[in-house]
Amino acid sequence: MRHFEEQLDELQHRLMQMSGLVESAVYRSILALVEKDADQANQVLQKESEINRMEIDIDDLAVRLLALDQPVAGDLRFITAAIKINGDLERMGDLAAGIAERSLGLMREPLVKPLIDIPHMANLAESMVRKALDSFVKRDSDLARSVLVSDDAVDELRDSIYNELIDYMQKDPATVRQSISLMFVARALERIADHATNIAEDVLFLVDGVDVRHHAEIRSDAEQKPLAS
Amino acid sequence: MRHFEEQLDELQHRLMQMSGLVESAVYRSILALVEKDADQANQVLQKESEINRMEIDIDDLAVRLLALDQPVAGDLRFITAAIKINGDLERMGDLAAGIAERSLGLMREPLVKPLIDIPHMANLAESMVRKALDSFVKRDSDLARSVLVSDDAVDELRDSIYNELIDYMQKDPATVRQSISLMFVARALERIADHATNIAEDVLFLVDGVDVRHHAEIRSDAEQKPLAS
Repeated sequence: MRHFEEQLDELQHRLMQMSGLVESAVYRSILALVEKDADQANQVLQKESEINRMEIDIDDLAVRLLALDQPVAGDLRFITAAIKINGDLERMGDLAAGIAERSLGLMREPLVKPLIDIPHMANLAESMVRKALDSFVKRDSDLARSVLVSDDAVDELRDSIYNELIDYMQKDPATVRQSISLMFVARALERIADHATNIAEDVLFLVDGVDVRHHAEIRSDAEQKPLAS
Repeated sequence: MRHFEEQLDELQHRLMQMSGLVESAVYRSILALVEKDADQANQVLQKESEINRMEIDIDDLAVRLLALDQPVAGDLRFITAAIKINGDLERMGDLAAGIAERSLGLMREPLVKPLIDIPHMANLAESMVRKALDSFVKRDSDLARSVLVSDDAVDELRDSIYNELIDYMQKDPATVRQSISLMFVARALERIADHATNIAEDVLFLVDGVDVRHHAEIRSDAEQKPLAS
């Protein structure tokens, strides 16, 4: 077995790889929707099993490190954070696959309106995933806090998308099925952003030892801080 | 510090307690919806912070056990399963709170139809949570497999609820907002059932050492097995 430090690097490296796949899956799933591009959607669905496989391998590596090297203190916190981040990334992959499936379902009908807020929300969610993983790699708690702040912008976008779609459905019952599919896409993006937020919270715990889960007051402090660029 | 075995028992005991709170939250959130009972909904919202607190305490205990006792093999698998189950239970608590909020939103208007499938789906989801935790406590892989089978019944109910609600919305635009709330309730129940399924998969890994995540073929084998009573 290689040196322990090398194995920790390997664990981090694999999480970064997995995060790259997940970001690309989110991007392609929305591209499939906006451009009506079935190839992109199918690529996302094909990559899903690769992401699932990575989750299992990363879990195995992490548990092996726990078992064989009996790490203490900081290393232990790092490995338990890695296990959680791994689970969050895998769920994001599932959600991107769900968006790809919805996109395929919407491929043959014209969209009731050009999509603007959904791609915007997707950009925001992708950037949250990237920042969350960067903050993990760099142990950068300011960057992690900036992810928590973005989560509120995502929630606002979701509300505005919902209200607009409800309006469409009320005015024209023929748009009900399509509008519901688009609501599910918005909901999936919101959940992807939530998982990025979970990762950022794990990073804050790892770096500062502060547990910010379920503490709205700490999160609103973060909102008053200037954003890391 | 108490004996290691006692601490493992404590960990299991706390997960059972938390599961009891979560089951009760799911039950009450649906009761609030069906009976238009705001007290029940408010109780669920109040209990949410207790569930969140339990999640953090259980995580702390598990990480302490990993750090201080450096467990190996079976104990290690048990503790990592406990960490995952803990996360799944906490998310179920969030979802029940989401249902309670939707119930409060629907309190003042008459429902477009008597609710039948949603309470049915809720019963099924609650029983999956209970069976998943029982299978963990008893290390009973047959019981865990029965949870995987129920998940398909939940998905069928969800489809039938969706289709019915879409029908309502298309026929009467005045029902759009209410129908969407009910779709979200059905979706939350589906996700609660998914989390119970995650727990059952963790139990199968713990007991049999078989990793059934992402392996549809193994799950469909389970479907051909007679159900554990």
